[in-house]
Amino acid sequence: MTTSTHLEGNMMQNHTPVTVIGLGLMGQALAGAFLRDGYPTTVWNRTAAKADQLVAQGAKPADSVGDAVAAGPLVVVCVSDYAAARELLDPLGAVLDGRVLVNLTSGTSQAARETAEWAARRGSAYLDGAIMAAPAAVGADAVILYSGPRSAFDLHAPALRSLGAGTTYLGEDHGLSSLYDVAVLSLMWNILNGFLQGAALLGTAGVDAATFAPVAKTGIGTVADWLSGYARQIDDGTYPALDSTIDTHLAAMEHLVQESESLGVNAELPRFVKALADRAVAEGHGGDGYAAMIEQFRRPAGVRP
Amino acid sequence: MTTSTHLEGNMMQNHTPVTVIGLGLMGQALAGAFLRDGYPTTVWNRTAAKADQLVAQGAKPADSVGDAVAAGPLVVVCVSDYAAARELLDPLGAVLDGRVLVNLTSGTSQAARETAEWAARRGSAYLDGAIMAAPAAVGADAVILYSGPRSAFDLHAPALRSLGAGTTYLGEDHGLSSLYDVAVLSLMWNILNGFLQGAALLGTAGVDAATFAPVAKTGIGTVADWLSGYARQIDDGTYPALDSTIDTHLAAMEHLVQESESLGVNAELPRFVKALADRAVAEGHGGDGYAAMIEQFRRPAGVRP
Repeated sequence: MTTSTHLEGNMMQNHTPVTVIGLGLMGQALAGAFLRDGYPTTVWNRTAAKADQLVAQGAKPADSVGDAVAAGPLVVVCVSDYAAARELLDPLGAVLDGRVLVNLTSGTSQAARETAEWAARRGSAYLDGAIMAAPAAVGADAVILYSGPRSAFDLHAPALRSLGAGTTYLGEDHGLSSLYDVAVLSLMWNILNGFLQGAALLGTAGVDAATFAPVAKTGIGTVADWLSGYARQIDDGTYPALDSTIDTHLAAMEHLVQESESLGVNAELPRFVKALADRAVAEGHGGDGYAAMIEQFRRPAGVRP
Repeated sequence: MTTSTHLEGNMMQNHTPVTVIGLGLMGQALAGAFLRDGYPTTVWNRTAAKADQLVAQGAKPADSVGDAVAAGPLVVVCVSDYAAARELLDPLGAVLDGRVLVNLTSGTSQAARETAEWAARRGSAYLDGAIMAAPAAVGADAVILYSGPRSAFDLHAPALRSLGAGTTYLGEDHGLSSLYDVAVLSLMWNILNGFLQGAALLGTAGVDAATFAPVAKTGIGTVADWLSGYARQIDDGTYPALDSTIDTHLAAMEHLVQESESLGVNAELPRFVKALADRAVAEGHGGDGYAAMIEQFRRPAGVRP
């Protein structure tokens, strides 16, 4: 039947053979997502038994890293760190030539850029990626960020999109995915710490964290809506106070420090928040809006503007 | 006409005379909101000229704080700090008796509780409040929190709701409004600082803050959805890892510190975030979820659990 043959032809075309190296929880989730979407998937792990479940689902186990890499044009690596990735791939030599190497191992932007140079010397196109999700979200709504040559991303975008609905290409600079990763994680930890500070303060008055959570969520939503306005000021380098000045914030920060100290909860984070604002005021930004605080974050403490 | 008389009767009933003491930007906004909703409004300010615009809108200027307080059953105070409020009201004596005093001045929970005791000795019902908004939002969507006797809040709820659609009664403990205030402000500063840290990191790679802002907003929305789950764990005192353990977070925090240090941006906040997690791990919480970090916030640094 013509239609069937046409569909099979399409499937052949669209389903590039893929390789997944490293089968920790995340690597298994990645290989599982490829398999579910019908990609011929070769897998390798130092401890071969970790491949068993994937092999039962149709994955092809490779006997060596070299065989795994040789199995297809798209090689996804997800191991513990960049050193482990390089240790596996360094001995391979020419087999990497002409393939697209996608490294989803967590690391710094510097390690990503160095690995890109290393891959270029082996004739490999290199994409660095960051998975902004738990393994359970891989193959579903995971946000996965990629940076490196646009052509390599575009070539394998259909396969990569199998790994997460939030597949995003950031740009040519290989360091971008790591930087976005830590930037968003940093925001996450700071939100959680801010929530915990509030929960600790309210806890002294017998208020449950569950009672605070919806109030906190409303507050978070309000602040999230301010970011694009602050961002414009940051990019412009001018910080007119849209509502509160840093001087006004500082008075309220003093209350936060006093409350934390007098109620016996941890006052380190409040004191840090206030110390940054104190420095901004000392540098003449007391009458500016909060966006002026960017200058405190752009350089190490103690370095004068 | 019966209908008109009935409406007028309602207006008389619902529009208690109100007093606003302190006519800074916020006090003027409060008095303006009362006036717009038809409340007979008496105003007083140390510098009388600040009342001029409100008087043109129909406010009655009082010659003294005593006259202002005597003008009605609901007295709203919004001055620079609690000391200023007490300095104004202390000399008044019996005129406060039987009135509801609402203090919207910013301060600590301890100052609020002390002021409640002071007001009780004068026979005054006391509500402490916190305005979680800029003056422009007063009379519109401002969130204003109140704590103190429920009966006093209920008695004047219609008038207080004129000041903001987000009028919220928190409970009998007079300290609650100040505590919620700093808890939400703390969250706000931490979100902004987390965003600024990320913007500074990405800025080193030429990424505009405006490009980061929508990514940050998505991340913030994700984290906001986690809070109720974390709150349940905090209230239960058990912290099973729902996805990442603190050990896993710590590895990523190390990348954040490395990026910040090697790219030459401020690394203080990243180091603080990591130091807190290090302490949680040292106390045996490495395999727990992030909610276990509450224990680091509940007590001063250096105090053992």
